[in-house]
Amino acid sequence: MTDNRTDTGRILLAPTGWSSQQWIEELAGAAPDRAVTLEPEGEADPSIHYAVVWKQRKGLLSKLPNLKVIFSLGAGVDHVFSDTSMPDVPIVRVVSPDLTTRMSEYVIWQVLDHHRHGPRYRAQQANRTWLEDKTQAAAADLTVGIMGLGELGRDAAAKLQVMGFKVSGWSRTAKQVEGVACHAGAQGLDAFLASADIFVVLLPLTHDTREILNRDLFARMTRRGPLGAPVLINAGRGGLQNEADILSALDDGLLSAVSLDVFQQEPLPPESRFWTHPKVTLTPHAAAASMASSLIGPIVRQMDAYERGEPLVNLVDRAAGY
Amino acid sequence: MTDNRTDTGRILLAPTGWSSQQWIEELAGAAPDRAVTLEPEGEADPSIHYAVVWKQRKGLLSKLPNLKVIFSLGAGVDHVFSDTSMPDVPIVRVVSPDLTTRMSEYVIWQVLDHHRHGPRYRAQQANRTWLEDKTQAAAADLTVGIMGLGELGRDAAAKLQVMGFKVSGWSRTAKQVEGVACHAGAQGLDAFLASADIFVVLLPLTHDTREILNRDLFARMTRRGPLGAPVLINAGRGGLQNEADILSALDDGLLSAVSLDVFQQEPLPPESRFWTHPKVTLTPHAAAASMASSLIGPIVRQMDAYERGEPLVNLVDRAAGY
Ligand SMILES: NC(=O)c1ccc[n+]([C@@H]2O[C@H](COP(=O)([O-])OP(=O)(O)OC[C@H]3O[C@@H](n4cnc5c(N)ncnc54)[C@H](OP(=O)(O)O)[C@@H]3O)[C@@H](O)[C@H]2O)c1
Ligand SMILES: NC(=O)c1ccc[n+]([C@@H]2O[C@H](COP(=O)([O-])OP(=O)(O)OC[C@H]3O[C@@H](n4cnc5c(N)ncnc54)[C@H](OP(=O)(O)O)[C@@H]3O)[C@@H](O)[C@H]2O)c1
Repeated sequence: MTDNRTDTGRILLAPTGWSSQQWIEELAGAAPDRAVTLEPEGEADPSIHYAVVWKQRKGLLSKLPNLKVIFSLGAGVDHVFSDTSMPDVPIVRVVSPDLTTRMSEYVIWQVLDHHRHGPRYRAQQANRTWLEDKTQAAAADLTVGIMGLGELGRDAAAKLQVMGFKVSGWSRTAKQVEGVACHAGAQGLDAFLASADIFVVLLPLTHDTREILNRDLFARMTRRGPLGAPVLINAGRGGLQNEADILSALDDGLLSAVSLDVFQQEPLPPESRFWTHPKVTLTPHAAAASMASSLIGPIVRQMDAYERGEPLVNLVDRAAGY
Repeated sequence: MTDNRTDTGRILLAPTGWSSQQWIEELAGAAPDRAVTLEPEGEADPSIHYAVVWKQRKGLLSKLPNLKVIFSLGAGVDHVFSDTSMPDVPIVRVVSPDLTTRMSEYVIWQVLDHHRHGPRYRAQQANRTWLEDKTQAAAADLTVGIMGLGELGRDAAAKLQVMGFKVSGWSRTAKQVEGVACHAGAQGLDAFLASADIFVVLLPLTHDTREILNRDLFARMTRRGPLGAPVLINAGRGGLQNEADILSALDDGLLSAVSLDVFQQEPLPPESRFWTHPKVTLTPHAAAASMASSLIGPIVRQMDAYERGEPLVNLVDRAAGY
């Protein structure tokens, strides 16, 4: 084991859009010996060894000659890569049981809300209408198709099966997941799209997946099932969506309903039709929050391990973009 | 083995409030040799051996001298017992994986909708407000308390644990359920009520449980947890509810919210405040539908087994009332 510790080194913290206070406090608690700064000093700041970032501003990381590792505060790293001037150091992303459990809560919650006709029952309540749906399908009558069989997709797949749903999945490289009908790559996409009634998107945003959720894709989805037309649930990234296509697909019935947690522009602008469309369930990028209390400990432990010469885990593949 | 078959015997079918057509068709398919009638003939009808009932009208079963078994079309049998002139023959209730799976869907759906602040996010969407709740609790921060650890309660308990919740439970007699903090009887009630944040009611309606959901009970529930005040989810029976107490508890904050699938009077009268109360999520006794396609087969198989001298299963305990 080599000792990577040259000197103590400072941590640059850039949690754009979130209050930095909680992150500073958690870092102070988990790494009392490490200095934390919100801004580099001078033209180039050699004192900074680690960057802990969410949507860091462009150029922020380009003048840190001794930067060793970038830690993303999210599972996705599209926000890191959107800065093309970023130095070529390892990027570590979040893989956390806390985050994964939260995402599966969101997935099961939204799948059940569509399967059990939440919007219809809420409308009936508003109209004082007592009308049971005698045709309620069983979970086993539906297949939930998961786009992205990574950390999040696999956990959701297991929990959906516990609830009684059939599950299929799609990934970039071939996968084997217990109980899941797995498809991979461009050549597996049509079979996947024909396999499911509700589509849950847990893909990263990369060059290959940008605006993958478009009319062409929706048209290839099956519409045999008890829901009539496919339901789309996207908790990946807004950049996966062609938003005009989603709206037109809802309008003409190509999709029966959508749950969207992420949007091309966040916060979603007030003029967006998504706010008021009757077939849209919208949450404000809240599917699975990155909690300082559960993420900072593992990040600091990785810094310690790295300095002892141990390998970093949950590394991002720069070529693949996730 | 004795042969209980004296002659072929007819089936009296009384699915009050449901269309009888699907039940007749399923019976014809599953038992083509058995005659089915919707009404007994004459003053006393000796041709009827079995009654397959949901909310049969009072007196219907009292003049059937050769009645051998009553089959309830629901898991609960309070509807059968509400007719006090009922003959003293074995009563078989529904225990079905299909029904159980549906009930657990409802439970997980409603627990998640409260845990993940469904009502708040729907209100924010209606107001075009983008506001993530930065204090979202983890499932593991909450305990779901299940009243009734029977066929339905135990399945819900297992699935809630898979989702990450802590689970406690309460039953009449002492129980041991994997991962569940179990309490029993009157002497265990206070400890149970102090243990949970969300209460899921899957009790049968009996002499002992009538209007058990009242202000006194709500006042004994803990209000330490992240939801501020307890959430109540009742999918048992409306008769378990003191409905005036539920409304007053919602009004003064003794309860934070309720999901009700069942009511003292069904259909719920249009003038009920439950329809419009902002803290009420209401479904029309739809938590777990009895599906003819999955229930009739097992009922006919029990008739066959009974006639071969085999014991009936899923028998109701008349003294306990469930
Ligand atoms: N809304 C929220 O609150 C929130 C919170 C956390 C994360 N997220 C999003 O969720 C995403 C997934 O997270 P994760 O931890 O599960 O990521 P992950 O472990 O990296 O898994 C990504 C999955 O997507 C697949 N994939 C990637 N590119 C693909 C392509 N071109 N075609 C087909 N499949 C492709 C991967 O295939 P391989 O298995 O073949 O590699 C993998 O199965 C994150 O990137 C982030 O954008 C959202
Ligand atoms: N809304 C719907 O669509 C729907 C559908 C199906 C069923 N249901 C309702 O759900 C109820 C439960 O069904 P199930 O199949 O789970 O019934 P079950 O197997 O008979 O279980 C009943 C549970 O309640 C407990 N219990 C009964 N009396 C009690 C008392 N006085 N104090 C404490 N605990 C008591 C029992 O305790 P022990 O374990 O000690 O016996 C048992 O754990 C049915 O009775 C029905 O009313 C509603």
